[in-house]
Amino acid sequence: MQKILNYVDAHVESFLSDLKAGLRISSISSDPDHKPDMEQMTDVLGAHLKVMGFKNVRTIPTAGHAAVFGEWCEQPGKPTVLIYGHYDVQPVDPIEQWTAPPFEPEVRGDKLFARGAVDDKGQVYMHLAAVASWIKVNEKPPLNIKFIIEGEEEVGSEHFGDLVANNKELLAADYILISDTTMLKKGFPGITYGLRGLAYLQIDVRGSNSDLHSGSFGGVVANPINVLTKMLASLKDDKGRVTIPGFYDDAVEISAAEHDGLSKLPFDEIEFADAIGAPALTGEAGFTRLEQLWARPTLDINGIWGGFQGPGAKTVIPAEAHAKLSMRLVPNQDWQKITKQVLAHLIAITPESVEISITPMHGGRGYLAGIDSPAIQAAKSALAEGFGTEAVLTREGGSIPIVPMLAEVLNAEVLLVGFGLPDQNAHAPDENLDLENFHKGIRSLVILYQNLSELKPI
Amino acid sequence: MQKILNYVDAHVESFLSDLKAGLRISSISSDPDHKPDMEQMTDVLGAHLKVMGFKNVRTIPTAGHAAVFGEWCEQPGKPTVLIYGHYDVQPVDPIEQWTAPPFEPEVRGDKLFARGAVDDKGQVYMHLAAVASWIKVNEKPPLNIKFIIEGEEEVGSEHFGDLVANNKELLAADYILISDTTMLKKGFPGITYGLRGLAYLQIDVRGSNSDLHSGSFGGVVANPINVLTKMLASLKDDKGRVTIPGFYDDAVEISAAEHDGLSKLPFDEIEFADAIGAPALTGEAGFTRLEQLWARPTLDINGIWGGFQGPGAKTVIPAEAHAKLSMRLVPNQDWQKITKQVLAHLIAITPESVEISITPMHGGRGYLAGIDSPAIQAAKSALAEGFGTEAVLTREGGSIPIVPMLAEVLNAEVLLVGFGLPDQNAHAPDENLDLENFHKGIRSLVILYQNLSELKPI
Repeated sequence: MQKILNYVDAHVESFLSDLKAGLRISSISSDPDHKPDMEQMTDVLGAHLKVMGFKNVRTIPTAGHAAVFGEWCEQPGKPTVLIYGHYDVQPVDPIEQWTAPPFEPEVRGDKLFARGAVDDKGQVYMHLAAVASWIKVNEKPPLNIKFIIEGEEEVGSEHFGDLVANNKELLAADYILISDTTMLKKGFPGITYGLRGLAYLQIDVRGSNSDLHSGSFGGVVANPINVLTKMLASLKDDKGRVTIPGFYDDAVEISAAEHDGLSKLPFDEIEFADAIGAPALTGEAGFTRLEQLWARPTLDINGIWGGFQGPGAKTVIPAEAHAKLSMRLVPNQDWQKITKQVLAHLIAITPESVEISITPMHGGRGYLAGIDSPAIQAAKSALAEGFGTEAVLTREGGSIPIVPMLAEVLNAEVLLVGFGLPDQNAHAPDENLDLENFHKGIRSLVILYQNLSELKPI
Repeated sequence: MQKILNYVDAHVESFLSDLKAGLRISSISSDPDHKPDMEQMTDVLGAHLKVMGFKNVRTIPTAGHAAVFGEWCEQPGKPTVLIYGHYDVQPVDPIEQWTAPPFEPEVRGDKLFARGAVDDKGQVYMHLAAVASWIKVNEKPPLNIKFIIEGEEEVGSEHFGDLVANNKELLAADYILISDTTMLKKGFPGITYGLRGLAYLQIDVRGSNSDLHSGSFGGVVANPINVLTKMLASLKDDKGRVTIPGFYDDAVEISAAEHDGLSKLPFDEIEFADAIGAPALTGEAGFTRLEQLWARPTLDINGIWGGFQGPGAKTVIPAEAHAKLSMRLVPNQDWQKITKQVLAHLIAITPESVEISITPMHGGRGYLAGIDSPAIQAAKSALAEGFGTEAVLTREGGSIPIVPMLAEVLNAEVLLVGFGLPDQNAHAPDENLDLENFHKGIRSLVILYQNLSELKPI
């Protein structure tokens, strides 16, 4: 093992050079003009896998952008790990806020700047480097490894579910390893063991056929904005709890053990608020900030509009008012059931003076891994060794819909081991990668493959 | 008197022809391209007054559009009435919804169609016709008459306050007669004795420096839309009463006599709701619909916006949310005092997790005439005689800021005697004037001048 780690240490510059080559390709999945770049990226990744010695390397087409697959499965009796990543990147707007061109990777200080540096090419190349180090020193990885690198993560992984369903045998694995999340902060390597789910709806309220003069009609007609704000405001009580009947019924509560664990993680309230320019933080009474952020459901109005929005004053009672409403859910909350509950509740509280229309938009399940699983322990010790510091267990407030999907369809355990940092501008100008994390991350992955190889196949 | 009324009956077609000439001039005050039409309209009206024999006819310039003045003051010892009207009209958009070109007046059935037919050229020309009839038969009107016809009513009478303040002597009068309101419905001629006031504010709530990802931040940051909807929703209780402390302190209550009077007026709840496509009406508990509409204050959100408003879903916690809020006020509610109360209350209920900014936009006083005044009785009997049916006393839910201004600056009693109907599309395509109301209105005005001439000057 030490020889492999030495190899990593000696070749970090070379790995970084490989990554830079990938970062020069502007694989923006949302922009049809970049279709050739998307294809170039699958070519490069496929070639990379072939050169390393991967078998069965192929581009798997979808109705959208293709995914790259390759496997090295020559360790019978050992577990198989499927490494998931994505080669597509976010658009670069606003381009004028970049210090240097986004597709001309540049090291400044201890960071590598480029679109995709951390999300997710940087982390895909860390796996490629870790596997390559095993092969160079040991001729093969210590377990069976498959790569699936998709091209639509930044546009919602629209066709990835079909791809997985259609290729269950090809992708079959005991563990799914994903490096596309962030660490709590620098110096706190960790495993993300929980994700929140989502339910999203649009609400349209109609009070009349056309906008009305507030003088001629004010006082006897329902103003759809007044009605909508009253309905929306009633969905949360003064303690920040959602009032929709049944909303919390299936929600997994935070165990005492987890509460203790989360309480030990650093969270600086002032620093967090200052970073986003918020006057103060606020949340559901009775929970810590990290619990509110990761392990408790939310209800947010994501958009609202109606009536006069221009400069000056217009005394109108609008015909309609609209809102987008979403809830972050915690594991065991079924987004479809929640959607039905919200719909029924909103209809029940709609006054007869308006008409309401509710459109469920989409949703997704949350995810929660058992924090005591052997794989998580394997990852924890690999990170501790790779980084030289204790690893932490964290959750994430967002949703990664492919995670519960992969776990279910492939009947495998997902391990979220990410090396991003919260301030690396993943979707913003000057996206960057911490070079120390790049190096220590590769070391950790080398060890993680070893640790996982010692587990029994599921 | 009968001779004058006979003259009216014999010359209705001629009066209509005069009106049509005025309606052919596209005097749209809001459109700079129509400045020449505005000037042509003041020329025509000035000429009309001169031909009739009015003295001191002049165009009074303002920083915007000019007003036309003329006087016939040859009845010493008799009261002076100032007839206010406006020669400017609303824009014609959407032009494609007009049955015929808006500035080519056309009689179809018992209605005259044209922009300005009822608002307000039609009613200005009714006064010109009534005065002309007096002069033709009697050589002079029975009292002293002044006309002031402004050109900025449809753009908020922005410069009219200055004009009145600068010409107090010229405009001095005992009574101010305005025909720019609507009757309750056809067959119910009436006097509008009350108007509501207005206070209008914009509210801006800021939660963070930029839009946040609802997964990464949801649960610990205040969502400014959630906060704003909660604040706005709290401003009215479940009975439709405004909860702002002190809001009702100065509001003139509805007397038992007025309640009885209003209760006798026709109001068809189903018809009213159907006309605007509202599923049902609603309003402050404990009051009739007409009281809610005319004599009780309101609180309406005229506009609201924030966050994602496009098609689909975006899981954003917006940095900001905004609303336009206005209150229709009743007499004695001081809009500046109310504005301060709203501001103080909103600030008091703003949670510390957001920043709020409140911008008072504008406001205006309500108006309430004494329903037993001799002038109102004079108008009531004139309308009853002119229309051959009992006249009613009504209020209006809207605000006409020049009314309380004129009453105060000129220290005169305002009489609102309008001949429009609620369905005449005053600001919409196919604006029209009821020809029976045109005829009976001129007859009523002939009698009204006589009735007012019998009152003592104030």
